[in-house]
Amino acid sequence: MRLSKLFSNTSKGVPSDEAALNARLLIQAGYVHKEMAGVYSYLPLGKLVLDKISNIIKEEMNKIDALEVQMSILQPKDIWEITDRWDDRKVDNWFKTTLKSGQELGIGLTHEEPIVDSLRSFVDSYKDLPIYVYQVQTKFRNELRAKSGLLRGREFLMKDMYSFSLNEVEHKIYYEKVVNAYFKIYKKLGIRDKTYRVYADGGIFNKGFSDEFQTVIDIGEDYIYLDQDLKLGINKEIYSDQNIKKLGLNKDKLVVKKGVEVGNIFSLGSKYTDALGLKYTDKTGQENSIFMGCYGIGVSRLMGLIAELFADDKGLVWPDSISPALVYLITVNTDDSSLKKAEKLYQVLTQNKIEVIYDDRDKRVGEKFVDADLLGIPFRVVISSKIDQDKFEIKDRTTQKIEIADLDGLLKKLLKK
Amino acid sequence: MRLSKLFSNTSKGVPSDEAALNARLLIQAGYVHKEMAGVYSYLPLGKLVLDKISNIIKEEMNKIDALEVQMSILQPKDIWEITDRWDDRKVDNWFKTTLKSGQELGIGLTHEEPIVDSLRSFVDSYKDLPIYVYQVQTKFRNELRAKSGLLRGREFLMKDMYSFSLNEVEHKIYYEKVVNAYFKIYKKLGIRDKTYRVYADGGIFNKGFSDEFQTVIDIGEDYIYLDQDLKLGINKEIYSDQNIKKLGLNKDKLVVKKGVEVGNIFSLGSKYTDALGLKYTDKTGQENSIFMGCYGIGVSRLMGLIAELFADDKGLVWPDSISPALVYLITVNTDDSSLKKAEKLYQVLTQNKIEVIYDDRDKRVGEKFVDADLLGIPFRVVISSKIDQDKFEIKDRTTQKIEIADLDGLLKKLLKK
Repeated sequence: MRLSKLFSNTSKGVPSDEAALNARLLIQAGYVHKEMAGVYSYLPLGKLVLDKISNIIKEEMNKIDALEVQMSILQPKDIWEITDRWDDRKVDNWFKTTLKSGQELGIGLTHEEPIVDSLRSFVDSYKDLPIYVYQVQTKFRNELRAKSGLLRGREFLMKDMYSFSLNEVEHKIYYEKVVNAYFKIYKKLGIRDKTYRVYADGGIFNKGFSDEFQTVIDIGEDYIYLDQDLKLGINKEIYSDQNIKKLGLNKDKLVVKKGVEVGNIFSLGSKYTDALGLKYTDKTGQENSIFMGCYGIGVSRLMGLIAELFADDKGLVWPDSISPALVYLITVNTDDSSLKKAEKLYQVLTQNKIEVIYDDRDKRVGEKFVDADLLGIPFRVVISSKIDQDKFEIKDRTTQKIEIADLDGLLKKLLKK
Repeated sequence: MRLSKLFSNTSKGVPSDEAALNARLLIQAGYVHKEMAGVYSYLPLGKLVLDKISNIIKEEMNKIDALEVQMSILQPKDIWEITDRWDDRKVDNWFKTTLKSGQELGIGLTHEEPIVDSLRSFVDSYKDLPIYVYQVQTKFRNELRAKSGLLRGREFLMKDMYSFSLNEVEHKIYYEKVVNAYFKIYKKLGIRDKTYRVYADGGIFNKGFSDEFQTVIDIGEDYIYLDQDLKLGINKEIYSDQNIKKLGLNKDKLVVKKGVEVGNIFSLGSKYTDALGLKYTDKTGQENSIFMGCYGIGVSRLMGLIAELFADDKGLVWPDSISPALVYLITVNTDDSSLKKAEKLYQVLTQNKIEVIYDDRDKRVGEKFVDADLLGIPFRVVISSKIDQDKFEIKDRTTQKIEIADLDGLLKKLLKK
């Protein structure tokens, strides 16, 4: 990508009402645009990051046999009344709207009811199970306050998955497969070592415990008690001697930290499937309940969290896996020979499927250095008359280390990524 | 894909209130689920078709230097009031909702205002132009009636693109590039020969003419007068001797047909950019207006149109380019040798990146034949003991022609696609 063609190369200003560091940086670097509190649009670089996070998640979901769907955002009232989740006094963060006929509609905040409802057209027998479906979809929650940038959106992108199993035993086997897939996702996103499986309250979903995945960060809204050796924890909401014992944790080893929830999974039992009449007939002809689970990951929240977690005083620092490009290319001099060298390197890297942002803007080189840091691209490659003609200067955005290498060395370094 | 793993392999029934053929077929074949009139969810096969259409469109948009973004669905009232498009008496198909604070929000039906607004953070000078941005996004229109299945949704997937040029001359050059890109898209989708460029009313966008792309089909809601040699037409809305003359058409050659609008493009001038204060400074330091265009294609509408256009009495007939798979594989016999042969073919095709739906369900072979037709997969490949051990029966879904070929012949046929 040539930066001269990218309109959104660093913003003229950040809204004065934007308090969250993640959003301030993402706005300043031209990744997102703030529409209102808790609502952001994704500009070209932001869309690339969002797609890369989505694709990492989709890949792991596909590996555990989940099928991708796309449910509607508009929700008919009737199926939510059956499960008693329509009334604002029961679920207090619905956005609602109205058809011309006066009929009320919901604007999707989660999708248990419509998924179960749609499966009624397909499920009869034990042969039709298990079913695993997921979607990556824009969701809406009418939050009273939304001051955490991309971490708590009124509109946000989410992966939600739903499993339907013959019984609790089969459900639990799949549930643990999902836990495993989630950790693979966090590893690819570079946050595995800061992310813990944390027991939490079932929330509106069930009365037992649920599993959260919490990434430790100072700005977190949740308090979590962690066993750092076991990589396990317990949310403050359910922190009690009784629960610690029940979960087999050692109270003396637990340290309290702040965390941001980057995933959650719930065993729903047959609450929704029974309510909406989704059942199966077993081999003996008897009707049985279907055991359901649901599994969420906030895609735009992850983007905000990763932005905030790795940022330094110079700007964003993306992990290679989700950076809009691996290389930020700058020429210090603008003589023909330098430009030719840059052009050639741009072609070679592109041919090697290495993504490059080439800063070919008509700007002072100092500004380009500042923007290279602000945008958070993993490697800054500089072409300068002060370096040997066949060499390049490579700076690692994370470690700030600078080295000089020839084309072979550069390619070797980048292709390892 | 093994059909035994796909929960949505043909539905138990079609809702009695579904009048549109495209939706009836797509529901019956398990591609979509109806949530309410004009609102559909996309099941795994439907999601695949939708993604393939989107990707064809994205590819052509990227080729003409448009950058992908994702604007928010929730819309703040203020920017729409500036252009006088907030009031329901001015734009009569908004869905609206309310924040807890009582503040009214819109639910995105188009994105001129927010795009222009977001560009204010980036545009100053003539050097910042041109800008071309697009998104593929779920949009919402509060239609009074929605009886045409996927052809007129209350919730639908749309590609919307916006161009920002220095002046009208540069705008027109890009405008014709988009016309060209649109025809490439329709060609890839298999509907080029039935699709016409049709002059139409500017609608809510401008007072001059706009360009529509209309696909001729009996169920179309628009009447269009076509010159079939020129591949040009004029919408009934603006059909008059004066306009026919103005557009250089020959009245005697025009024949009236029904069409479905599969794309539209508008010159917006500086209506929105001026209103929202998006201007640029030219080389002499003078402030100038920015010339804007907008370019839409309905993605889910195209899916409905193509479903309806090519369907026959046996079911759907997908063009190769957007079919969820190229091959539907059936074994007539279930002896070990047949199953082994099928398994091997499934592997070979998959290795050759040919997408296969393998009907490995525990069903009668007659039912599988019926479903192969209903699902509309381009080639049905049958393994049967009545055919030579090293041969396969191939049936073309469109022409219904059957031929026998060995593996080499089969691969040659499929890899040409």
